Amino acid sequence: MKNPKRFAVIGGGSWATALVKMLCVNQDKVGWYMRNSDAVGFIKIQKHNPNYLTSVTFDTDKLDLTDDINVAVGKADILIFAVPSAFLGGELEKLTVDIKDKIIFSAIKGIVPESGMIVGKHFHTKYGIPFENIGVITGPCHAEEVALERLSYLTIACADAEKAEYLAENLSSDYIRTKVTEDIIGAEYAAMLKNIYAIAAGIAHGLGYGDNFQAVLMSNAIREMKRFTKRIHKIDRNINNSAYLGDLLVTGYSTFSRNRMFGNMIGKGYTVKSAQMEMSMVAEGYYAAKSAFEIKSKFEKKARTPIIDAVYAVLYEGKNARRIFLDLTEKLD
Amino acid sequence: MKNPKRFAVIGGGSWATALVKMLCVNQDKVGWYMRNSDAVGFIKIQKHNPNYLTSVTFDTDKLDLTDDINVAVGKADILIFAVPSAFLGGELEKLTVDIKDKIIFSAIKGIVPESGMIVGKHFHTKYGIPFENIGVITGPCHAEEVALERLSYLTIACADAEKAEYLAENLSSDYIRTKVTEDIIGAEYAAMLKNIYAIAAGIAHGLGYGDNFQAVLMSNAIREMKRFTKRIHKIDRNINNSAYLGDLLVTGYSTFSRNRMFGNMIGKGYTVKSAQMEMSMVAEGYYAAKSAFEIKSKFEKKARTPIIDAVYAVLYEGKNARRIFLDLTEKLD
Repeated sequence: MKNPKRFAVIGGGSWATALVKMLCVNQDKVGWYMRNSDAVGFIKIQKHNPNYLTSVTFDTDKLDLTDDINVAVGKADILIFAVPSAFLGGELEKLTVDIKDKIIFSAIKGIVPESGMIVGKHFHTKYGIPFENIGVITGPCHAEEVALERLSYLTIACADAEKAEYLAENLSSDYIRTKVTEDIIGAEYAAMLKNIYAIAAGIAHGLGYGDNFQAVLMSNAIREMKRFTKRIHKIDRNINNSAYLGDLLVTGYSTFSRNRMFGNMIGKGYTVKSAQMEMSMVAEGYYAAKSAFEIKSKFEKKARTPIIDAVYAVLYEGKNARRIFLDLTEKLD
Repeated sequence: MKNPKRFAVIGGGSWATALVKMLCVNQDKVGWYMRNSDAVGFIKIQKHNPNYLTSVTFDTDKLDLTDDINVAVGKADILIFAVPSAFLGGELEKLTVDIKDKIIFSAIKGIVPESGMIVGKHFHTKYGIPFENIGVITGPCHAEEVALERLSYLTIACADAEKAEYLAENLSSDYIRTKVTEDIIGAEYAAMLKNIYAIAAGIAHGLGYGDNFQAVLMSNAIREMKRFTKRIHKIDRNINNSAYLGDLLVTGYSTFSRNRMFGNMIGKGYTVKSAQMEMSMVAEGYYAAKSAFEIKSKFEKKARTPIIDAVYAVLYEGKNARRIFLDLTEKLD
């Protein structure tokens, strides 16, 4: 990738804001689309996002801000999608510009609800993007700590190592270290599964289980993630690398995680519906649990996934969380 | 092990108190030695330990309490040692009763400072106890959560599976699940190493690193633990089992861990000596760091242990924590 490429970040939330901040260290101009016109106007004047990571100040000369996704996409070579998976379909429907020749990186940790696919596969299947032009950005990384410039490590996955390297270089800085991998499928599924395990951690906490059980749950979760990703895409993968285990831990141990909060409410006795209404947004793990359960049900060679099964039973089969988790404790070790 | 065996717990701290509580569920009589005579007298009248896990009430008819280690050891077939490793030598010196034919389980997570050995090896070497009569009890398990009867999982390691099973049955209850393994060496070294990693987590936190880095640190720590234990005793071991990864997580993520607190003070700028003086007791990981560093320096086939090296440099070579950890961040991924 000798010629410089133009980036556009798609999304106005905290993770999108953090990614724009990272790119601005290395790029003179960064495209940034968000659907909220008021926020676009606000940033241009006040130099920070009014709703997310408000402490991050931008050099607005470097920003090419727009509330028109076609403008942002049209000017860019590399698109970084960082909207909640539930909103991706709606955003893509607005496109009139062709994205077939774009390089697409997903910073979305989840399943596209409409297609039930991980994001990379969704782009490949619905938009004909070749796999070598699709990549994933994964943590462990809370956007809030990027705002504080606390040292964080990102893993960039792409079948085409050169593209992964190019993005990695452009995200790196004093406080961001990057690593590249070709395991895009494993990285995407791991990022999706960890949200289910964060819901499980929340349910357990809500039910009154403590730190001892949480450690056992995470220890079982990483083994389950290994079995699951092995069935999906069998390669020589060290599941204890930061992109898999680290990402699980940063979410599963975070009391700020939306997925863990959602689970916690269920554990405390909220119904799924009332927990969703109480939260302003549906937790990614909610969709992920359904998708993961359906995918594993179709595995030719079965894999033990007691945690996914338990979360699915609570969220989609209306089963009693206390009883299901008591059963689950018998299946863990 | 058809004939019932008598247990004695050696120690008066929180973990010893928790173990006595667990055994009392399954045994009519449990021997319990602690050197503090006042505490022995207090428990006999007030039915709870005056200093540790004070909420746990005992049926004193079940307790055979004594402040004479020879009385406790003389009556018991199975000894469970749960004193800080720094005090083990002093307690063993008091022995006039022969322990050669006893079954010894260690609930101590550390290195015996005088010999530089893990506890099982210390008993084997200094007291001629055959390895099949030596075992280890390991977590993930905070004693405080046992007091609250929160579900916890213990792993009992012994080369003789029958003995491990016997102890496992006697520790099990509604809130304690047990698992047995023959990997006593791996379990002991893992329990010791995790204290070093908890010190590292504390130092990082004290220096201002956040949750993103903590996840990366733990992800690297479990890989380092795998390399280390593989050099020590190469068997087919799943390092992500609860006895290894779970135990690492419960300590590394605990803000109550003595090792993490010790590290945190170092990170905040205390000298090693002043941090030790500030805390009432030396953290186990302090000795473990020296021992682990010396052991790994003698490995025939070298193993990368950047975290152990960093903690050793800070604690024993007087190196600046900020600089050493900045170097460390370059070695992690």
